[in-house]
Parts: sequence; C-alpha cells; structure tokens
Amino acid sequence: MTKKPETAPPPTVIEEIKPQVDGGRFAVKRVIGEDVVVTAACYAHGHERVACAVRYRGPGDKDWRESVMEPLGNDLWGAAFNVGRQGRWEYTVGSWIDHLGTWRDGFVRRVDPDDIRLAARIGAGLVGRASALCGKADCERLEPWAKILREDDDIERLRATAMDEELFELARANAPRDGLSQSEPLAITVDRERARFSTWYELFPRSCGPVGKHGTFADVDERLDEIAALGFDVLYLPPIHPIGRERRKGKNNATTSQPGDVGSPWAIGSREGGHTAILQDLGTATDFKHLIMATRARGMEIALDIAFQCAPDHPWVAQHPEWFAKRPDGSIQYAENPPKKYQDIYPLDFDTPAWRSLWQALRDVFLHWVREGVAIFRVDNPHTKPFPFWEWVIAEVKRDHPDVLFLAEAFTRPHVMHRLAKLGFTQSYTYFTWRTTKAELVEYFTELSADDSREYFRPNCWPNTPDILPYHLQNAGLATFRIRLVLAATLAASYGMYGPAFELGDNRPREPQSEEYLDSEKYQLRHWDRERPDSLAPLVARLNAFRRDHPAMQTDWSLVFHPTDNDSLLAYSKRQGDDRVLVVVNLDPHNVQSGFVNVAMEKLGLDVGVAYGVDDMLSGTRHTWYGSRNFVSLDPARAAAHVFAIA
Amino acid sequence: MTKKPETAPPPTVIEEIKPQVDGGRFAVKRVIGEDVVVTAACYAHGHERVACAVRYRGPGDKDWRESVMEPLGNDLWGAAFNVGRQGRWEYTVGSWIDHLGTWRDGFVRRVDPDDIRLAARIGAGLVGRASALCGKADCERLEPWAKILREDDDIERLRATAMDEELFELARANAPRDGLSQSEPLAITVDRERARFSTWYELFPRSCGPVGKHGTFADVDERLDEIAALGFDVLYLPPIHPIGRERRKGKNNATTSQPGDVGSPWAIGSREGGHTAILQDLGTATDFKHLIMATRARGMEIALDIAFQCAPDHPWVAQHPEWFAKRPDGSIQYAENPPKKYQDIYPLDFDTPAWRSLWQALRDVFLHWVREGVAIFRVDNPHTKPFPFWEWVIAEVKRDHPDVLFLAEAFTRPHVMHRLAKLGFTQSYTYFTWRTTKAELVEYFTELSADDSREYFRPNCWPNTPDILPYHLQNAGLATFRIRLVLAATLAASYGMYGPAFELGDNRPREPQSEEYLDSEKYQLRHWDRERPDSLAPLVARLNAFRRDHPAMQTDWSLVFHPTDNDSLLAYSKRQGDDRVLVVVNLDPHNVQSGFVNVAMEKLGLDVGVAYGVDDMLSGTRHTWYGSRNFVSLDPARAAAHVFAIA
Repeated sequence: MTKKPETAPPPTVIEEIKPQVDGGRFAVKRVIGEDVVVTAACYAHGHERVACAVRYRGPGDKDWRESVMEPLGNDLWGAAFNVGRQGRWEYTVGSWIDHLGTWRDGFVRRVDPDDIRLAARIGAGLVGRASALCGKADCERLEPWAKILREDDDIERLRATAMDEELFELARANAPRDGLSQSEPLAITVDRERARFSTWYELFPRSCGPVGKHGTFADVDERLDEIAALGFDVLYLPPIHPIGRERRKGKNNATTSQPGDVGSPWAIGSREGGHTAILQDLGTATDFKHLIMATRARGMEIALDIAFQCAPDHPWVAQHPEWFAKRPDGSIQYAENPPKKYQDIYPLDFDTPAWRSLWQALRDVFLHWVREGVAIFRVDNPHTKPFPFWEWVIAEVKRDHPDVLFLAEAFTRPHVMHRLAKLGFTQSYTYFTWRTTKAELVEYFTELSADDSREYFRPNCWPNTPDILPYHLQNAGLATFRIRLVLAATLAASYGMYGPAFELGDNRPREPQSEEYLDSEKYQLRHWDRERPDSLAPLVARLNAFRRDHPAMQTDWSLVFHPTDNDSLLAYSKRQGDDRVLVVVNLDPHNVQSGFVNVAMEKLGLDVGVAYGVDDMLSGTRHTWYGSRNFVSLDPARAAAHVFAIA
Repeated sequence: MTKKPETAPPPTVIEEIKPQVDGGRFAVKRVIGEDVVVTAACYAHGHERVACAVRYRGPGDKDWRESVMEPLGNDLWGAAFNVGRQGRWEYTVGSWIDHLGTWRDGFVRRVDPDDIRLAARIGAGLVGRASALCGKADCERLEPWAKILREDDDIERLRATAMDEELFELARANAPRDGLSQSEPLAITVDRERARFSTWYELFPRSCGPVGKHGTFADVDERLDEIAALGFDVLYLPPIHPIGRERRKGKNNATTSQPGDVGSPWAIGSREGGHTAILQDLGTATDFKHLIMATRARGMEIALDIAFQCAPDHPWVAQHPEWFAKRPDGSIQYAENPPKKYQDIYPLDFDTPAWRSLWQALRDVFLHWVREGVAIFRVDNPHTKPFPFWEWVIAEVKRDHPDVLFLAEAFTRPHVMHRLAKLGFTQSYTYFTWRTTKAELVEYFTELSADDSREYFRPNCWPNTPDILPYHLQNAGLATFRIRLVLAATLAASYGMYGPAFELGDNRPREPQSEEYLDSEKYQLRHWDRERPDSLAPLVARLNAFRRDHPAMQTDWSLVFHPTDNDSLLAYSKRQGDDRVLVVVNLDPHNVQSGFVNVAMEKLGLDVGVAYGVDDMLSGTRHTWYGSRNFVSLDPARAAAHVFAIA
C-alpha cells in the first residue's frame, strides 16, 4: 500500500505563472522603476472561490511584501508591483480557498428565510476565524458584525449586514488561508535604466590622433563633446590592452606585419601585460581614469571590450601554461576554423583541469576594470566559452556591483544567443545587421518585442561593426546608410554604430565575398574626415535627441507594425503613456515610394473620429491626419523616413 | 566570495524537451504500441558538436534503453521509441560533447599536410579513449585504426582512414561522454488501446425490461447482441447501487416522490447498502458478474459510474458522520447551488479531519469493482472533489491495475477540465456537446488534436447525455441528430451516446430553458420503441463498423480540416499510414448545401497529378476525384455527410 501523505495536500492550483523563464531556471529582467505584471491561473475544485496574491521582495529584504491579485476571467489572476532598486528580486504566487467569498456568493442567492438564517450563522463562524487572527482594532470592528450574523433573525438586517463591503473585505483580508498553495520563488534581475535604453558609439581611440599619429586617451577626451552632441550615452572602446607582437597581423589581416603595423587590439597581451594592462601608446591608467571621469561628466560612460583570448606573448602563456591546450607536437593550440588558422591568437582552454584558477582569473579581469570605474562590458564572442562560466562570472560580478551591464557579442545560432541572454547578459547583439526586407524586419522585431523571450533577451541593434560591413552596405550610397540608421534608432531602444565609418558611409569591403572592411581599423590607424558635408552626423544627432525626448522610443515592448499597401514602406509605432511615435520608412534607397498607411488607431489610443497632428522631426513639417488611412510619399534622395511625434 | 563549484558544470545544454506536461509535473499519455517521438534542443558553446540520446524504460525495468537522437536542424534533435507495455514509463534526454565529430568536422577541411598529420594524431588520441572503454572485439578493430592515425605520414591514407564511416561510428558510440548533461526523467502513462479508441453506449438497465417492469441485468444480457451489432465496445451503466428512499425525487425531478417512483440512481445508498452494493431490483452480484462476462464475450466491456455522494439513508451517514459536514443547526449539509437545494444528496466533506479514512474508503470502492471485473469507470462530477484526491486515487488504482481507465465527467471551466486530465483521468468529456458551427468545430477540434494539451487530454465526445439535451437538439428533427452523430463518430476517436434516446431522436426538454430531458430516465423507467423504422440505429452501426475498419478513425492526432467555400460544409480528414478518410458534413439540417472542397492533398499524401477514388460508406457510391478542388452537394433529408474512404 502506498503510504498516505501526512496532511491533506492543498486543493488550490497555481499554474501558468508569467513572467517566468524556463520554469524559473532563469531570472526575468527589468530596470529600476518598471512594473512587474504577474499573471497566473489560480483555481480550486467545484465552486470554491480562491483568493491569491503575489509576494515579492527586493535585494537584501527579509520580509515579503504582498500585492493582491485581481481576477482577469477564465481562472486567470493578475497583480503588479514596482521594482525600485537594482539587484535580484524574487516573487511568488500564493492561492488559497476564499471561504468568505464562497460563502457570500451563495448567501446573496438564498431566498428561504430559514436558509438565510442558517447561512448567516455559518458566515459568523467564518468572520470569527478572521477576527481571531487580526489586530485589536480590526477585531473590535469585526466582532459586532459577526454578532449580528450569529444572533439576529431579521432577514433584511442579515442581508444588509452580509453586504457591508468594508467589513467583508476586512474579514477577508484577515481570514486564515486555508488550502494555501505557494509557488516556488522566481527571480528578477533589476538593472539600471541604461540596460533598457542606450545609444552606443564604437570608436578606435588609436585613430583619434592627428594624421599619421597613434591616438591616445587624451585625443578621445577632446572628441567627447562632439560625441555627446551626437546624443550617444555609451562610448565603447575596442580592447585597450598591450597588443601581441608575436605573429602580429599586418594591414588588411596580412599574415605578416610590417614595421610600424599596430596589430589587432583583440590580439591581447605582450611583454608589457595582459588583460588588466593598458597599451602604452594609448596612455596610462591615470589617463584612462581621466577619460572615464570626463565621459561621465558628459552624461556618458565608457564600455570596455572583454575578449578572453591571448596573443602568443601574453604573460599568461608563460605564467599559466595549464590554461592553454597543447597540440601533439607540444606547441600551443592556436585559434582555428579549418582551413583558416589564427596563429596570432591562443584561445583559453576551458577544458583544463585548472578551470577553477582560470575562471577566477577571468572574473578578476572584470573586477579590475570595475574598480577602475568601468560599469559596462561588451563581451567578445561569449558563445565560444562554456555557458556555465558566464552564468557564474556574471553573478559573481553583479553580486557586489549590480550596476554592471554586459553586452553579448554573439552573432551565432538562435538557441546559443538566447542561452547567453538567459545566463545573465544584460543586452545582446542581434540579427538586425542582416534583416533588410519589410517581411524580415516585421517578423524579427515582432519576435524581439512580443515573444516570451523579451523577458530576458534585450536587443542592441547595430547597422555595422568593425567586423561586419553587411552586404547591403557594400558600395552602397548614403541613402542606404540613412535607412539603416533610422531603422536601428527607431526600432530598437538600444542601438549602436561603429563610427566614424558609419556616419561617413564607409562602404568598401576588403574583397567581394567578405563582410570585412577594406583597410579595417582592426589592423591599422585610420584618419576620418569628420567635416565632410555629406556626413550623416546631423541626422544621427537629430535621431538621438528624438530618442532622448520621447519616452516611447526608450522601450522595445510597445512596438506595433501598421499595414501599408507598399512593400517598400514599413510603418510602426511605439507608445509610452501619452507619448506616441509613428515611423514610416522607405526601404528602397533608389526610388520614390508612395502608398497608404493604415494606422491601427486603437493600438495608439487614438479616437477614430478625431484628427491628429503628426510632426515630422526629420523634415520639421507638420501634418494633420484624419482616420486610419493616410497617404505618404518618401524620396530616398531627401529623407529615408517620416519620424512622427503624434500630437 | 561565492564558493566555487567542486567540478566544472557540464557545458552542454538540454532545453525544450517534448513531449512534456508542465515541466514534467505530470505524465504524458500513450497507448500500447505507440511511438513516443522525443525532441529537444541540445547544444554547447562555440563549434563543439554534441551528440544526444533518449534513455527510456518501462514499468519494472531497472535498466534504461537508449535511442540515439538525430539532428533536425536549428540545434534540435529527435528520436523515437515504442511503448510496448501498459504502465508507467520514463524517459530522459542526455547530451554530451561529441569530440570525435568535432574533430572530423575540422579534419576534412584541413589542407596543410603538417596540419593534417597533427590533427590525425589528435584523432588517434580520441579513438584511443573510445577503445579503452569498449569490449575486446571492438577494441581489436579500433586499435589498428588508431595506429594509422597515430603513426602514418601519408596524407591520402590518413584522409581515407579518417573517413572510414564504420570505424568512426564505432569509436563514436564508445567514446566517453564528456560534459554530459542528463535531464530529469519524465513520465509516460501507457494505457491499453481502448484509452485512445473507444465507442460508448450509455444505457439505463432499469429501462431494459418489459413495458412497466423494472429492468434487470438479465434484461441487459439479452440486449448485448444488439448493442454489439451496433458496433459499440463500451457499455456504460449509470450507478447500479441501492437508491436512497429518504427525500427521493419523483418523476421529472419532483421534490416529492410517489409510491412506485424509482428515484435517481445518483442518489446512492439505502439501508441495503452503499457504493459497493447492488440495487436488488437489478439483480445480484452474481448476475452482475454474469453481465460482465457476457459483455466481454462480445468484445465489449462494462463501464461503471462512480458518483461520490450519498443519499440521506446511505449507510455511511450513520457509520461515518465524520465524513459529512454539519450545518449550524446540527443537520447534515445537503448539496446545494443556492437558491437550488438538492436535499436528496449529501456531499462528502473532503475538508474533514478524517480525510484519510475517507480517501481510503473511496479508493476501496474502485478496488471493489475492479475485483468484480470492472476496468472502466466513468466518474461523475470529479471537478467537485479536491484535485489531490484524484491524483492519489488514480495512482493507487493503476499501480496494481494499469488496465483500469477513468473517464472524467467534468463539464466545467477549461483549466479545471485540463487539470483533471493531467492528474490521471484517461479520457475527458468535452465541449463538443455544445459546439455546432463550422468555426466552433474547427477551432475546438484543432485544439483537441493539435495543441500541446493533446499529450494528456483525450477527448470523448458525446452528442447527448442523460443530463444534457443540448438546445440544438431540442425539438429538432432527425436530420440534426444525424449531423451530430456523424460529427461525433468521425471527428473523435472516442465518442459515446446516451441511448436509445439518441438514436430514436428524443428531443423533448423538460421546460424551454432547461437542457434536461422531459420524462428523464434519471427519475423514471422509460420504454423505448427500438423497432421504429426511422431509428438511426442502422446509421450508428454503419459508422461504428467504419470506425473499426479504418485505423485512420482510431486516432485524434491526424485530424486536418480542409477549406470549403460554403460555411455549412465542414470537411476534414484523418490518416493512419495508407488509410485515409475524408468527411464532408452538411451542418445545415434544413437545406441542400453545395460547394467546393479544397483538399489539402499533400497533407493526405496524395499526388496532385493522380486521380483518386472516394468511396462513400454512407451512400455506397464511388466517385473519382481529380486534384484538390471538388464539388459536393448534400441534401440533409437524405444524408448528413459524405464519409469517404480514399482509395
């Protein structure tokens, strides 16, 4: 015979709790000040009413707070709470039998006087149980109420008494929670706001100097006002460490370098130091600290590149040979993707028995730069390192530094990209870089903004990177660059560009089948003519200012696509409270495209019968639109898009 | 400092395992002989290839068997295994790094001879690790292979050696499973085939006697050949227990009964006994056993009604007052749904502190009838008893009697119906009873056949029950009954009817707003004229024979709806291997409806260019159809539907 359980299991059911990621295996993500809207199916057998509540607590809290859940129909319930501090929050759903509610449901439907009197006595008993659990003041209010239900025989008075909403709710709030089920706690990672809304500019400091000279942190300092004026808030620097001299790559990735070649910043480490050192040509630790402070003073911050790989002359190669794999001939295994060899790079061997000391050393790299004042890391190729390492190291860093943000530079298969986001990366690079058609953009951004994955995957969209000059930008004109800029800046709450290559429309690939830039800054200094009259910088500045001014632009979740009758016209809106933005992009860089936009007015909270103004922040013109169907015509030679604020 | 884990966590990920119910909280369901197709996302970081396998075992098995998973693309993998015995099965997914696969992936792409030689040495090491783990015979095959890779310098020979598929797979099958992740076991409840495919006939034995006389089990015996000829395989009897005399209901649910009134079989228990006793008017335990054997001899079986509630004179009321709730006046709480009172029924009090003895007594009711030879229970209103009770009692019964099937008679909210199915009920009543329009039927049966809930929710569709004469059948003609019959018999692998009321077209409600039958058999004997020439019995027999002859009719999962250009024409197909059935129903009982059916030929595995025969089993006619678009016209006065076997 099966052993019977010692107490009757609770009869209440809690199912379908949202949000949650993989049944609670991973945390959902929010930023400070956001609401967490929790829904769940809560019910019991038969006609038993249930009540339910969300309990939640913030980092360091011992006690739980509680938010009563309201019925949404079909046995679903919902409640919201606000997360006001960064760090790790928890929440759980509880559900119990609402005996008082069940009792009054029936009570109001009874007609037979004897039946009503008996039912009143039952109610008195339930109120008595609540009264026994509550404070003196509440008790003194409930007792007289229970007394009437217990003793009175007057039907009308009993009815009126039972219907006293205030006392009923007081009793219900204090009633014992019979049959309580409580879900396992679920976690929320709460970040500062920049986790959700950020505007990135990637820059090679070494190209910031005068023509022909290696740039320095001081040169970047001088650039800061200009970058701030463009409206960026994150300045992301490729690795700033000493660059390997052994097997250094030459210009355009040549396997042998010439004297004076500066090498790739991702070939990290030399006699002068490794991941915690600074390339002398850029400056000193003091210079770097100064740059950090100067950036911060302008409302921006520095994001540092973390690439866990070593040049052959990285100090770790000699100090920690146990962290590198050996080939059968005794040589150290370089990076490769056969038949390609990357002999200037030694990957770290995460399969090493010395994995503990390796993990700790890598964590200490993060902690070093955190101490130096860096609070954003763009992590290079995280998908080539084991997943458990990332879960561990991000938790390690965020435990004492919850303000630190991590951007995963993983351009790889969907499951892998999602896994990295689940493991703790704050933001993720996306496939936006290669999504160009209307159908592709609608499908992909619907996924990013509306799928369950939005609970953990925060997109950061880039039209280009130093590694990727996508095919559609190769040899393309500035009209194409404008389109990609508007899309990135208005579809995504976080986006970035690699400049000045982007705003100057650098469009030359190293070779036809490659997405590498010709004369890539990865291997040489470049001087950029930022004064060129056709620079997209003014458009960048205008878009970024618009993003700052409009809360609707600062979130991904409100994105709605609106039908157009032209496949070259992409229309979408975002909304935050009363702030409403409508964007219509001409995806064709060569031809004027015209057509009707069918504005889904109810999704924007617009009255069908009322005219509305649309202010184009790009052209500075204002139109008045009536109803949902409106004509637009866009000439790519003049403007990629209408970016409308709806007034 | 966070304590570091003792060993490096496995780098392989296993996600999205299907099938599973609520993350493994509940078992999925299959019948003997079915395949379980398991899919999962399995992957690791970077370019590491993974291998994965499903492990599974049947009831009583100590050892696991294994089925290697094949890649399906996008990091998804799949494998199938067959469940050949009833009872509880388990399965789990394992995934590990496929070092040999990763190695050969790179090996075939290498071009530099020195590089190839070094890589061959690495491969030799991997083969050596596999060889160390395998049996002598395998080892003797692998060693010479490894030797070539280890020692040979000839590039072509090394290439050819590495490409030896047979030895490569042998090595891979024996390789150590580095970085192994193993999922938590998931459960499968495997039932006998009748769990999936069953045809039910509900009958009041007391109406089976000669006119004016109380029918007996012996009368039912004499009806068995006829019922078997109609093609039913489950004969479901309302409760057969002594019926309460206290507060017995009269005809048409009158609150007072007249002498001679037989009462409701669901008012269970009297002086003569309770849930394990038999109403003397029906016969003895021996008579019942004889009925069971006679039913079985005809390839059918008896399903018994289990209604856990008591008449006021049920022996438990006196013997176990602790199992019943008391009202404040000391009286026992009768069933009620205010203002309605069901004073002839005492519900059991599942909140009693004596819940253990109550649960055990109820379990013993099931076990009593199992010993008497009953293996199917239709459970009355399971949704009014606590969920944990059902999970426990069904597991208790099935532990020693895995052949027992449970049908949940819960017509209630969706979450509650699904929960009961998850908890272990083999089959469930459905909303089919009230789904009449094309849109409703397509939506509901798409849910039943294609949603994830099909893993645990097995529908059993009824056009009527003794409790439900749905509005569309009230005062309706036989054309409507034919439509509902064809829909139930061909949409659902399991269906049932309450007869002879159904096949004789009983259409009179007790009152206009009620779904109760007038002169319901629940409260009185009825004599049915089964010889009536307009009886639907011949159609029932033809449909049920078709169901038996066509494997396609015996499963729900293959259902596909095909578009028609007439909202009164519903077209759908089912398929099992080469057996293909196409049904076109005219949902309009009053008018001839015509239109084109657009057969989704690829879903039926039909060649677009090849004509196919459609044999109508209702009319006996045969047509030849060409292509997908075909014209049909159905006159409800003559036939509700085409039921085509596709030849």
